[in-house]
Amino acid sequence: MSQTLSVDLNCDMGESFGAYQLGNDEAILPFVSSVNIACGFHAGDPAVMKKTVNVALQQEVAIGAHPGLPDLGGFGRREVAVTPEEVYDMVIYQVGALAGFIKAAGGTLHHVKPHGALYNMAAVNLPLAQAIAEAIYRVNPEVFLYGLAGSALVQAGQNIGLQTANEVFADRTYQANGTLTSRRQPDALITDEQQALNQVVQMVKDNTVRVQDGSIIPIKADTICIHGDGKHAVTFARKINETLQQENIAIRAANSSRIA
Amino acid sequence: MSQTLSVDLNCDMGESFGAYQLGNDEAILPFVSSVNIACGFHAGDPAVMKKTVNVALQQEVAIGAHPGLPDLGGFGRREVAVTPEEVYDMVIYQVGALAGFIKAAGGTLHHVKPHGALYNMAAVNLPLAQAIAEAIYRVNPEVFLYGLAGSALVQAGQNIGLQTANEVFADRTYQANGTLTSRRQPDALITDEQQALNQVVQMVKDNTVRVQDGSIIPIKADTICIHGDGKHAVTFARKINETLQQENIAIRAANSSRIA
Amino acid sequence: MSQTLSVDLNCDMGESFGAYQLGNDEAILPFVSSVNIACGFHAGDPAVMKKTVNVALQQEVAIGAHPGLPDLGGFGRREVAVTPEEVYDMVIYQVGALAGFIKAAGGTLHHVKPHGALYNMAAVNLPLAQAIAEAIYRVNPEVFLYGLAGSALVQAGQNIGLQTANEVFADRTYQANGTLTSRRQPDALITDEQQALNQVVQMVKDNTVRVQDGSIIPIKADTICIHGDGKHAVTFARKINETLQQENIAIRAANSSRIA
Amino acid sequence: MSQTLSVDLNCDMGESFGAYQLGNDEAILPFVSSVNIACGFHAGDPAVMKKTVNVALQQEVAIGAHPGLPDLGGFGRREVAVTPEEVYDMVIYQVGALAGFIKAAGGTLHHVKPHGALYNMAAVNLPLAQAIAEAIYRVNPEVFLYGLAGSALVQAGQNIGLQTANEVFADRTYQANGTLTSRRQPDALITDEQQALNQVVQMVKDNTVRVQDGSIIPIKADTICIHGDGKHAVTFARKINETLQQENIAIRAANSSRIA
Repeated sequence: MSQTLSVDLNCDMGESFGAYQLGNDEAILPFVSSVNIACGFHAGDPAVMKKTVNVALQQEVAIGAHPGLPDLGGFGRREVAVTPEEVYDMVIYQVGALAGFIKAAGGTLHHVKPHGALYNMAAVNLPLAQAIAEAIYRVNPEVFLYGLAGSALVQAGQNIGLQTANEVFADRTYQANGTLTSRRQPDALITDEQQALNQVVQMVKDNTVRVQDGSIIPIKADTICIHGDGKHAVTFARKINETLQQENIAIRAANSSRIA
Repeated sequence: MSQTLSVDLNCDMGESFGAYQLGNDEAILPFVSSVNIACGFHAGDPAVMKKTVNVALQQEVAIGAHPGLPDLGGFGRREVAVTPEEVYDMVIYQVGALAGFIKAAGGTLHHVKPHGALYNMAAVNLPLAQAIAEAIYRVNPEVFLYGLAGSALVQAGQNIGLQTANEVFADRTYQANGTLTSRRQPDALITDEQQALNQVVQMVKDNTVRVQDGSIIPIKADTICIHGDGKHAVTFARKINETLQQENIAIRAANSSRIA
Repeated sequence: MSQTLSVDLNCDMGESFGAYQLGNDEAILPFVSSVNIACGFHAGDPAVMKKTVNVALQQEVAIGAHPGLPDLGGFGRREVAVTPEEVYDMVIYQVGALAGFIKAAGGTLHHVKPHGALYNMAAVNLPLAQAIAEAIYRVNPEVFLYGLAGSALVQAGQNIGLQTANEVFADRTYQANGTLTSRRQPDALITDEQQALNQVVQMVKDNTVRVQDGSIIPIKADTICIHGDGKHAVTFARKINETLQQENIAIRAANSSRIA
Repeated sequence: MSQTLSVDLNCDMGESFGAYQLGNDEAILPFVSSVNIACGFHAGDPAVMKKTVNVALQQEVAIGAHPGLPDLGGFGRREVAVTPEEVYDMVIYQVGALAGFIKAAGGTLHHVKPHGALYNMAAVNLPLAQAIAEAIYRVNPEVFLYGLAGSALVQAGQNIGLQTANEVFADRTYQANGTLTSRRQPDALITDEQQALNQVVQMVKDNTVRVQDGSIIPIKADTICIHGDGKHAVTFARKINETLQQENIAIRAANSSRIA
């Protein structure tokens, strides 16, 4: 009997703050198998974290921490010249804070995925990546580390003994060296929905992706990132969920029995 | 064989922030049996929290979280009209964050003591006190709750099933109803060192205190608060430690074998 | 020839922050004669302030500063136990910052209206009201101070020599003593649109308002507050603007030639 | 009759925050001719700004704004990937806020000097430098712009029509291309007091400096930066002040009649 092919579908959530609402968390939840919850540095606040943990538990999706740089005004998207030790500290702080809400709600922390500029920096800067991996390992060696497929972050996680998930993007184009095309390039985003769906299926089924120079390169796709904001976010989440099911690809977080 | 009388000596620590240094943490640590570490809302930052947890572990004192109101500019000393639910959320967040550093360092969270205006509000406002107690209980039902002796906070902790410690002050005067004399009154502070030491010994040995109208009232003294800043903080910490030892009163945190 | 009756229609604006959008500023601007721009403490940021000043200048509405308590997480709606001196300082800081953007854009600061909890505290607390009035007067004695009609804030402004504007609300009910019905009461808000419009016209034309016990009391209505967020904000702004015009009431800020 | 040689001696001030004290402002003030006051983003708060403006006015030193990156936790020393437009906005905000306190106290804003990472970035990044220069020019075209001697920041100021001051450092070594030796190099700092004093006198009298490869290069020294924190800050401030006077070099801010 053949094993069912499966992949995780993850989405950033809990990015509201105080009086400010952001995202479509409850509308997207039914279509994903794991969520990354902001921890108050780049977005989120204690009330939003509690609420988001609770709805994620109700929907039985895997819950991850989404630590970011301390830059609420820049939504964690601006690189800050932080040292590895500063990164170690800020990851422990944020993961610990979210773990408090998960503990209070009777759930389990499943993974950690850095946010925004921290994610991008850790993809190419090994000392920062190691600091993140060590912080997570020290707080909870059982959790998964989500990082850009093939990046220094995934490598650092494996080196220290964490379980890792290679993350791919449905709506981003790739370069021949396996990196994402910079958002400063005109062809960074895939705007055609069918093309994005095709890319996802190919990445999951064939473990390859067609890159910008036309060649096909190998890529490991353990988890797919869905964007939660934007006008068509919910529609696309539903579409990608349906497409994967039609292709007999189970949608579930690693180590999880729940199928979205 | 008679049981040795004992009391806990606690001090607020980890109140530095970024480039800003505050307190005399390492000089005072040898004289206390437990510390309350700021969690980033009214003071402290991730780097300071990590460092303070580490030195506290080295000194083998009991480690507590010291959550405060989100008011760095006011050092958590200004009352903010927060709801019980907001308080519940901010306590879980801060206790969780500190617990992350304790976990990473291989230690154990021993207690939680609210800071400043939050401490004062919880002493007299039962819904806020209950929110704090519930937050702690949900994150870790084994930890102690430190609150003003005889206050609503201690009551709320007992009601929910937490272990509690009644806190008394060496250098503050008391009213006939057991509350502290307001700092707005001229006689709120005990400036005479010997008088402060006498008050402490009487509270621990006799479970009484002489209040401002001259009468003597009962008071429960499980833990004594030492102030860590100020010119004479270290000297006074040493003095109170020596005095208690001379009186054959052991200085140790509840449930702890370590004697300061 | 009789003088045209006129009133100011003001709206809070520039309440977005970083990645977070709030309000319908550009849709509401055509219907008002003055705006109150958040200054970064309870809402707003430098980019939002610049942009809001610029669109306000294009629409030729009077520009005011909208200083609030330093509580972004609570949107400035939670009372904080600040001293008059702290209030004096935070008003100068915020008014100065907004004045910088107005200066850079070639405009003029027309008024200052405190926000949220600061507005409410200053309505009944004369020392806080005086601190606000003095801060404004020291930075620019020519600007108007907007405060709750008949409040301590308006009184403090007059005492120090500022021009003042008594603010009334279209959709709030009033008590016999001239104060707003507390939002904790079930009948605090007027949900019937026509009733709100009638109240506004009566306040402007007759300088009276029918209060909750059925009696009619005098009220001074120099400026009417329009709420900018909420589903029906734009529709109601248009409605109140049209109604005032139909009643031959000119809509313009004090000392301003512009008619909205 | 020959014109007296003069130079400005400036010091960063007002870097305390809330309960946190930093620096020796009042002890150093007698020895300098201009001060740069933090504006709340990297350090300082409204209360500190007011107080610092007031003591500076009493000492009759020239008052400058010292805007920094929005990074209180990092004291504005970590580079943040901000855009020129973000820099433009944050400079207007901070300069405006300080100008409010100066206005309230009856003083005049004399100059603007960016702080820390913003200063360093603007020294070599012309678009950022231009954004700073334009922000200042729009708020007040009369003020001086202080920047690293010979840097892009001074150039940008001159280009837009601002008066500028080339800043030199007493205790830093220079490279052959006129830049400061990086703090990551072992020989970045001059620890010998006499050598630092000699360097200052040479820079002011001869407009040259001996650089790390032994050669002598031209440098323009309009203003000398004194560090306000550190154990020997006050002693060195007095020493440099006395040395300059002994060399018949007047210590005064540009356009100022006051001699420190």
